[in-house]
Amino acid sequence: MYQSHIFIPTRSTPATDEPSKNGKLLQQAGFVDKLHAGVYSWLPLGLRVLNRVSAIVREELNQHGAVEILMPALQPKSLWDETGRWEKLKEIMYQWEDGSRHHVGLASTHEEVIVDLMRRADLTYRDIPQSMYQFQWKFRNEPRAKSGVLRGREFLMKDQYSFHASAEDLATYYTGMQAVYLNIYKRLGLDAHVVEASGGTFTKRHSHEFQVFNPAGEDRLLRCEKGDYIQNTELGTPTVCPTCGGTMVEEKSIEVGNIFNFGDYYGTTMRCTFTDQLGKRQPLFVASYGIGITRLVGTIAEVLADEKGLVWPSNVAPFYGHALLVGKVDDALRKRAEAFEASMPENILLDDRDVSPGYKLKDADLIGIPFRIIFSARQGEHVEVTERATGTTEVLTVDQARAKLSAL
Amino acid sequence: MYQSHIFIPTRSTPATDEPSKNGKLLQQAGFVDKLHAGVYSWLPLGLRVLNRVSAIVREELNQHGAVEILMPALQPKSLWDETGRWEKLKEIMYQWEDGSRHHVGLASTHEEVIVDLMRRADLTYRDIPQSMYQFQWKFRNEPRAKSGVLRGREFLMKDQYSFHASAEDLATYYTGMQAVYLNIYKRLGLDAHVVEASGGTFTKRHSHEFQVFNPAGEDRLLRCEKGDYIQNTELGTPTVCPTCGGTMVEEKSIEVGNIFNFGDYYGTTMRCTFTDQLGKRQPLFVASYGIGITRLVGTIAEVLADEKGLVWPSNVAPFYGHALLVGKVDDALRKRAEAFEASMPENILLDDRDVSPGYKLKDADLIGIPFRIIFSARQGEHVEVTERATGTTEVLTVDQARAKLSAL
Repeated sequence: MYQSHIFIPTRSTPATDEPSKNGKLLQQAGFVDKLHAGVYSWLPLGLRVLNRVSAIVREELNQHGAVEILMPALQPKSLWDETGRWEKLKEIMYQWEDGSRHHVGLASTHEEVIVDLMRRADLTYRDIPQSMYQFQWKFRNEPRAKSGVLRGREFLMKDQYSFHASAEDLATYYTGMQAVYLNIYKRLGLDAHVVEASGGTFTKRHSHEFQVFNPAGEDRLLRCEKGDYIQNTELGTPTVCPTCGGTMVEEKSIEVGNIFNFGDYYGTTMRCTFTDQLGKRQPLFVASYGIGITRLVGTIAEVLADEKGLVWPSNVAPFYGHALLVGKVDDALRKRAEAFEASMPENILLDDRDVSPGYKLKDADLIGIPFRIIFSARQGEHVEVTERATGTTEVLTVDQARAKLSAL
Repeated sequence: MYQSHIFIPTRSTPATDEPSKNGKLLQQAGFVDKLHAGVYSWLPLGLRVLNRVSAIVREELNQHGAVEILMPALQPKSLWDETGRWEKLKEIMYQWEDGSRHHVGLASTHEEVIVDLMRRADLTYRDIPQSMYQFQWKFRNEPRAKSGVLRGREFLMKDQYSFHASAEDLATYYTGMQAVYLNIYKRLGLDAHVVEASGGTFTKRHSHEFQVFNPAGEDRLLRCEKGDYIQNTELGTPTVCPTCGGTMVEEKSIEVGNIFNFGDYYGTTMRCTFTDQLGKRQPLFVASYGIGITRLVGTIAEVLADEKGLVWPSNVAPFYGHALLVGKVDDALRKRAEAFEASMPENILLDDRDVSPGYKLKDADLIGIPFRIIFSARQGEHVEVTERATGTTEVLTVDQARAKLSAL
């Protein structure tokens, strides 16, 4: 991809109206554009990262036997009245009357929709368990949207719902999903911890959160100085670690996922049932599993960025290599750089713009593609390859540089 | 993919609350589920078709040099007031006040957002032309949503916007896009015609529609009985063909795309400019290009379905082959069918359910996958392969059947 062709509106200074590091950098590097508070356009580079994060999540879920669907954003009030959530969520759910005086709202979660879908499907014991997920843009009327893409009014979620014949079957699947989630974070280069969450609104509900320690987080966790014991502050604030006696220290963290075991709450409240082996209708056991995809992009930005700009792990980077044509560019040099790009057009971004080397180098650091490859007359037939994360530089042949990127 | 695993809630009878053919069949075959009027969930089979249609559109646009982005649905009133469209579109645009008394709305189109984005990008003549597209769910407060997925309140659009230095450059690109669109429809198995549209609201605006003749359409076109001359009824109703003198006949058609040449309307009204070679700010010339993706799925359903159910062209089918295990199934037969599925798990749906052969055959016709492959003890080592569109049946070896699907 040629940089002159793709739209990357970098700025010389960080966005002044963005208090968060991820919001500042993602805008300055041309990954996103703020339309209004908490609402962003995803520009070509940002969308590529978002799609690569989604692809990793999708791959892991498919391997775990989940099936992808897509549910609508527009919600009828009647459905949400069944669980009392229309009223309960009215502060954060966008709700209004349409022209025909019907109350409609925008979904920030989809339990009611999928439970309604499943109860109408006339399921038998042969049809379950079922686990279905979607990647869907959610809406939430955030009073303060100051955390960049970590907390938007419009944000992309992977949400997922599983349906089971018994509490035992649900518990097994629920535990398995914890391992799936930890694997997802690992592939994204994030060190996430699973933490038991507070009971919440539902009596029979269990809930776990996945947390990444980071100063940008809005959550607070207690971590034992000595070991790996971690506890949510909502469950009390012990000063001594219950397992080793070490001191517990409070740290900020970002919630990068949450899962809920609702037991038979939805099965009974919304009468979502299946026919068992004896022909009797029984309530289904339901759990839900959320991961904020836009939030993950913001988290990776917060955790890995340095003073020069963004730093993307190769698994989610918009490109593997950023080729820069610098200095006096003759035809032969341009052709070498263009041939390099043409050999991996989906994975190499070629800065072919007519701007100064300093400008190109600054933009490359800001954008944060894993490897920068400099084509200049000074290096002759060779290229200078610098790893963005470490700053390590090697002088390689073009073939060696290509092999390096192909191995990612 | 095993049919017992994927969620396909087929029904024995068509949906009674759906007047349209596409709505009836897509629901009966388990591709979509209606949440409320004009608002559908896309179930596993439907989402697969939607994604395959999107992939074809994306491929053609990328080849034509367009770049993908994603703009938000939530819109601030202030932006739309610049063109007067907040007021003008208030009947069909969902608009309300949020908790902070800010007026927000849901986008049914994105000219205002992208023009605002481009005017803030401080473009020079070096940065243009630019052509950017998105696949984005749109919202429209349809008073009557009775056409299934042909006209939803929530629908997926590919919308695209191009920015040019001159009317001439725009005109060239605009004409090129007509060819791109016709190629897209051809790949989707649709016979689409480009028709000049009425002038609309903007004085300097040109507009073209892409139309597929079909009784389910809400548009009416005049077509010459003898030749290929077609005219929009909005531009007058001649009874005689102006090119050959033949009789003009009115026919219903589905609008499957539209493109608008706005000239310098947005460039001047919203002050969206670029710096020319002399350092002077000049208005940009803007065009937009829309294709309703969910509507395309509905159109393909309307055009190709027969009395037995849906019929998908292989380019957009959810799977290439539908393997049915029927009759008395012993271990050897089951293993052959499973090995067949395992050789192309993304392209073969295996009906492994414990239901009668008649039930399986009826479901297969309803779902409309291009080839049905019957594994039964009666055929020994062979399978019976039937093309859904034509009903042609052949008895083949499993390898021959696989080769047939691989060639799609």
